[in-house]
Amino acid sequence: MARSDRNEQELAARLAATRRLTLNLAAPLSDADATIQPHPDASPAKWHLAHTSWFFETFVLRDHVPGYRLHDERWAYLFNSYYEGEGDRHARPRRGMISRPSLDEVRDWRARVDAELAAAIPSLSEDALTLVELGIQHEQQHQELFLTDILATLAENPLEPAYGALDPVPCHATEPMAWIDGREGEVEIGAGNGFSYDCEGPRHRALLHPHRLANRCVTNGEWQEFLADGGYRTATLWLSEGWDWAQANAVTRPLYWRGDDSHFTLAGRRRLDRAAPVCHLSYYEADAFARWAGARLPTEAEWEDSFASSDPWLGHQLDQAGPVVPRPGGGPFGDVWQWTASAYLPYPGFKPASGTVGEYNGKFMCGQFVLKGASCATPRGHSRASYRNFFPPSARWQFTGVRLARDA
Amino acid sequence: MARSDRNEQELAARLAATRRLTLNLAAPLSDADATIQPHPDASPAKWHLAHTSWFFETFVLRDHVPGYRLHDERWAYLFNSYYEGEGDRHARPRRGMISRPSLDEVRDWRARVDAELAAAIPSLSEDALTLVELGIQHEQQHQELFLTDILATLAENPLEPAYGALDPVPCHATEPMAWIDGREGEVEIGAGNGFSYDCEGPRHRALLHPHRLANRCVTNGEWQEFLADGGYRTATLWLSEGWDWAQANAVTRPLYWRGDDSHFTLAGRRRLDRAAPVCHLSYYEADAFARWAGARLPTEAEWEDSFASSDPWLGHQLDQAGPVVPRPGGGPFGDVWQWTASAYLPYPGFKPASGTVGEYNGKFMCGQFVLKGASCATPRGHSRASYRNFFPPSARWQFTGVRLARDA
Amino acid sequence: MARSDRNEQELAARLAATRRLTLNLAAPLSDADATIQPHPDASPAKWHLAHTSWFFETFVLRDHVPGYRLHDERWAYLFNSYYEGEGDRHARPRRGMISRPSLDEVRDWRARVDAELAAAIPSLSEDALTLVELGIQHEQQHQELFLTDILATLAENPLEPAYGALDPVPCHATEPMAWIDGREGEVEIGAGNGFSYDCEGPRHRALLHPHRLANRCVTNGEWQEFLADGGYRTATLWLSEGWDWAQANAVTRPLYWRGDDSHFTLAGRRRLDRAAPVCHLSYYEADAFARWAGARLPTEAEWEDSFASSDPWLGHQLDQAGPVVPRPGGGPFGDVWQWTASAYLPYPGFKPASGTVGEYNGKFMCGQFVLKGASCATPRGHSRASYRNFFPPSARWQFTGVRLARDA
Amino acid sequence: MARSDRNEQELAARLAATRRLTLNLAAPLSDADATIQPHPDASPAKWHLAHTSWFFETFVLRDHVPGYRLHDERWAYLFNSYYEGEGDRHARPRRGMISRPSLDEVRDWRARVDAELAAAIPSLSEDALTLVELGIQHEQQHQELFLTDILATLAENPLEPAYGALDPVPCHATEPMAWIDGREGEVEIGAGNGFSYDCEGPRHRALLHPHRLANRCVTNGEWQEFLADGGYRTATLWLSEGWDWAQANAVTRPLYWRGDDSHFTLAGRRRLDRAAPVCHLSYYEADAFARWAGARLPTEAEWEDSFASSDPWLGHQLDQAGPVVPRPGGGPFGDVWQWTASAYLPYPGFKPASGTVGEYNGKFMCGQFVLKGASCATPRGHSRASYRNFFPPSARWQFTGVRLARDA
Repeated sequence: MARSDRNEQELAARLAATRRLTLNLAAPLSDADATIQPHPDASPAKWHLAHTSWFFETFVLRDHVPGYRLHDERWAYLFNSYYEGEGDRHARPRRGMISRPSLDEVRDWRARVDAELAAAIPSLSEDALTLVELGIQHEQQHQELFLTDILATLAENPLEPAYGALDPVPCHATEPMAWIDGREGEVEIGAGNGFSYDCEGPRHRALLHPHRLANRCVTNGEWQEFLADGGYRTATLWLSEGWDWAQANAVTRPLYWRGDDSHFTLAGRRRLDRAAPVCHLSYYEADAFARWAGARLPTEAEWEDSFASSDPWLGHQLDQAGPVVPRPGGGPFGDVWQWTASAYLPYPGFKPASGTVGEYNGKFMCGQFVLKGASCATPRGHSRASYRNFFPPSARWQFTGVRLARDA
Repeated sequence: MARSDRNEQELAARLAATRRLTLNLAAPLSDADATIQPHPDASPAKWHLAHTSWFFETFVLRDHVPGYRLHDERWAYLFNSYYEGEGDRHARPRRGMISRPSLDEVRDWRARVDAELAAAIPSLSEDALTLVELGIQHEQQHQELFLTDILATLAENPLEPAYGALDPVPCHATEPMAWIDGREGEVEIGAGNGFSYDCEGPRHRALLHPHRLANRCVTNGEWQEFLADGGYRTATLWLSEGWDWAQANAVTRPLYWRGDDSHFTLAGRRRLDRAAPVCHLSYYEADAFARWAGARLPTEAEWEDSFASSDPWLGHQLDQAGPVVPRPGGGPFGDVWQWTASAYLPYPGFKPASGTVGEYNGKFMCGQFVLKGASCATPRGHSRASYRNFFPPSARWQFTGVRLARDA
Repeated sequence: MARSDRNEQELAARLAATRRLTLNLAAPLSDADATIQPHPDASPAKWHLAHTSWFFETFVLRDHVPGYRLHDERWAYLFNSYYEGEGDRHARPRRGMISRPSLDEVRDWRARVDAELAAAIPSLSEDALTLVELGIQHEQQHQELFLTDILATLAENPLEPAYGALDPVPCHATEPMAWIDGREGEVEIGAGNGFSYDCEGPRHRALLHPHRLANRCVTNGEWQEFLADGGYRTATLWLSEGWDWAQANAVTRPLYWRGDDSHFTLAGRRRLDRAAPVCHLSYYEADAFARWAGARLPTEAEWEDSFASSDPWLGHQLDQAGPVVPRPGGGPFGDVWQWTASAYLPYPGFKPASGTVGEYNGKFMCGQFVLKGASCATPRGHSRASYRNFFPPSARWQFTGVRLARDA
Repeated sequence: MARSDRNEQELAARLAATRRLTLNLAAPLSDADATIQPHPDASPAKWHLAHTSWFFETFVLRDHVPGYRLHDERWAYLFNSYYEGEGDRHARPRRGMISRPSLDEVRDWRARVDAELAAAIPSLSEDALTLVELGIQHEQQHQELFLTDILATLAENPLEPAYGALDPVPCHATEPMAWIDGREGEVEIGAGNGFSYDCEGPRHRALLHPHRLANRCVTNGEWQEFLADGGYRTATLWLSEGWDWAQANAVTRPLYWRGDDSHFTLAGRRRLDRAAPVCHLSYYEADAFARWAGARLPTEAEWEDSFASSDPWLGHQLDQAGPVVPRPGGGPFGDVWQWTASAYLPYPGFKPASGTVGEYNGKFMCGQFVLKGASCATPRGHSRASYRNFFPPSARWQFTGVRLARDA
């Protein structure tokens, strides 16, 4: 990313907007709401607020602003996520034990970091500006995690408190399922111009075999059919590991479905919208459904090539703080991330970024699957066709859904 | 307890004072502090506040005040501890997931329950008044747990925040250890007049064998000698189960000791007072120390008979909200609970109380040991010689210490 | 135990008989049968054969016969059970990993040890002879464990192979339940003359409260009534820890019961004898049954005092190698060990034996309950009223049953 | 595979040879050796003997020979591995609990099945003959597992018993490492003519990016350098999941290395041959080593295309029963399976075989990595370039090693 491609003022404005959105996301939360860690893979809301500031303070202010003094040296221990190069850190599963600093103290720290960043930007080096950009993207990722984690938190409460209010579920007709021919032969995929994470590149040739993709994601209504047909009770539809997982965890429906026609959402308990994309699925469930439907999941190359020319900023995405839920009628980017059949592995010629930020992606390339698209919780502007989201096959607390594919 | 023994006004005053102390204990805490559950055996501070109100609302107001309507029917699910007779309840290890109701909402509920109780007392039946007394005692128990659990909570935080401030550790001479002859032959133990829990009775004869008890508890300084002598590395000093526990949990010193001359307390990190009773020990450690010292732990009958004529309201106990820590120079009641060599089992002729409150004690009579005395966190007025505190042998987060005994 | 009390020839004869019985117990087993460890608390049959020889070789031959050379120094590592004083040892849960030495090699070792013992006895010191006696008693204990462990092993096999054959279940009338008054006041219990383990002494005064004991153990038929009455589904009958244990392990009937009218035994699958003592119960189940029956479990002192004058060598015990099963009509010693309400704790004045053999009993005095009597698998001659068998409350694979008691 | 491609006599001869080799592999084992299951992912030797017979009896004799009666209907429950379509089965982690049937009984069963198969072959349908071929291949796989599992079994024994004897480690010079250019662009991979498993097909185009492969596998000597350079202590060399695995399991060297210059092998404890391929590595270790060496692991397409024209029946493979160990100087097929960077996922157009045997491969396509080549324990004749061996990234008890690759 050459300096000529970037306008400092634009960067500063995006930085400010991004930082503000995070604060707005936290606005409905109490200090207690923001402290809870609902499960070891999720983080407290307060931790997201603090960790994103830690990222800027550490990699931009500390490393690139002469004379900068850390707000509190001990906070690095609390709010480092997984960077071995940055030393020891608080054990991930114990993030919910930190009532102090309080939410307000973390907000104060954010304000101070924001002021220092704003003052520093005009004199930052090219390398440092690249880290600011990385910090914005990093914070956008955490905005999505913020919403999925607070959903997981509120879902733990038998009182079913809502993060915010939404209008009642409208009545939608379901768009008919159709199959779109994909391209065949050699294509190019991977990151091109503009910001991207190291794992999205290098751009490279990939070979597509004859295939077709569904025009839309699988809906709640279709999932109810799968359920009614005994999908969760039929071992032969499942991967062996998936079947064992479902038995061990007594999985009989998508996460947050309540067993009647309702599910728990950021807007509280709510009627299922039969026309909306089904959500909060593991890879195992997505794969079993595809087998039941006589289809399969798309590969990441198939998905990316099909939607490379779509506008990734269109769709049901996150525009402002508030509760979100997948809705009918969206395009490939938005509503739900779509599981692919591709393991998250390095692209040909992949090299991690140098330095500590190089721990960002490469070291997780094992045991995970790629998801493509974006979700209703993805901040608008963050998505692109080359994006490689990734989670272990059992993860369900993200906004994860299914788009089907078929051999042609 | 006959009605003539009890003065309603006195009861109402004690009720009010007890309820007020609980509120005061919570005063230094944020909503977030009060929401954290540090480990599955401990509870959030907010939960203690709510559960004690639930107890009064359920067993007194609901059951004995005609027309009383529950504040929120769903809260019973959240704040029932373990009463099977009161239906399903929130899983104990998930108590830290409840950010709502907030600490303020719980305080409001307390206020409402208090007002209703105050209004109801003049017209309550004898049975109901007995339950009010039980509720006071129950709340006093939770006051102590409140302090031990908030200590455990703050100890989880690498920043080592303090619950409150204490003066620096003073310089004390250690009282010399001396051995006091106990009585021999048949004695009477168990609850007499005045309030007691069902498990403390019936009063019954017990047989004492020749023995002597130490005049005071083991001190931090003496424990440092045990440590320096390799006490934690010498398998033959330990019970087999205790040794396995110590190895599996890498136990090398009392809980909250930091490996230098300091320990973590409600007043934050603090120098060890060599003359003060050592604290936060498991039964296993207490037993190993006694063996190392050529002594043993007292039985509960030995302990109770020795101190039956001491004033159980004297000693270093909890008088007002604030940080507490064991101090030198106290008597048998206060500073630290003292592990006995007696398993917590029913006394001859024991009958649980009838009704749901009968689940109070009897069903825990397995796998636990009795502790006698009181601690610095025991509300003054709550202790008595017949008291049978009990915990599993691995528990360390209470104010638990050691008084030695010997065969005579 | 003075020398004059013991006849060397008698000792040598008992040693030979004991050693022979162990071999006979192993006769029906293949090398593979004898290698399996069915669960971490049980041991392979071969291990029992080897460990009992290791005991004699280590504590008698090595320590008391000048010039004795160990058969194989590395076997000590394999066949030491838990003696810290004897150095490191093979992890208990991995005992089933030892296919070599083979069963035949272990038999050869036994023969060599037997020959050396026989040759050595005439010149052994008094101390050494005491250890021979201890070794005999130790081996008798392992004979019972041999049978319970091989039962557990065969029960793991879906083919339900039998250890041996028994005649069909006869038709018995059930002896009516009656209540016998126990003594009240001070009595003496604990080991007197003759061999005993250190934990059985010293003999001491104990205080009995008015009570009555049942004339016989609870039968399979009575247990079926408990089951039919929902005993396993009624939380209020159970200790809290017992209820959690039953739910976590889906316990709905005694171990080895098959859910019809049959149970698995050393003689294979077999019809339940309604008149025979019910067997393979945990303490939790025994305690719940007693509560259901309006009774309680006896204390060890009550039990011991009641049956101190009974002949402990009478009853349905182990006379020769072969399958055993509890039968109707026996006395207090035999058929099933009887859970008491007493925790396994040191008697007043208890001192462990000195040296490594002192690790025999004392270090297990935590978390276990005492069982009294004897079982169908106890070698005749091994039992006495002062015997303190002990197991954790969840243990079920021993021949454990219930005799009820009541306050009088 | 058309009938014209197969000669029934040839098939019968291969069947007989395969079945005989399995028996010979078991020859050095006692009934006890053959009963032990060393860990839940491995199986007892006896189970391998029985399961391979079960496969023939079930899918060939029962399904294709009119009037065939199963040897014992209950054995299907014991010896079915994972075929849901064949009903319930004995829990995998409990396979070591089956001392009966004995090794001799299993041998008798094998003989009967062999006789029935030999008699049936002339009249079997084409479909049934295909299943015979599948059964041979299946049994060859189990021959390799037999050896890896018995190695794991004997390694559990502190006495370090040997499966067989080998000559002392000879003195070899290490072949210099060299890099061979791979092809670039579209190639064809996947199963062609001859037997293959369903997962190896369909044959399809794949796209190779510029790369080079090492001429040989990494040696023990090179691994010692990695170790000496702190490879196991340097977090940044490792995948995040791999680092966590290594810490949790205290992994500091290849499985069976003893920390001196020796390792445990089928021939017992043995000096490491510095020139031989390093073995018993997890994917995590292989990947970390490659990063340390400035290289990477090859993809399966790179590997397969490079060695598609090599003779897969050449190399250090299993020719006859006896202990095997990787040796220097071999080719791509033999000594050690080579971890690839490719997740085990379906090839484009993959369809599982129909019927129960279709559960053979497809349902395991999640969470595993592909290994290519063959090992010293692979029966000669079983390997081919299209072979896709697969294991989870933490598996180490197979003969697994590393061949490096690089971007060109």
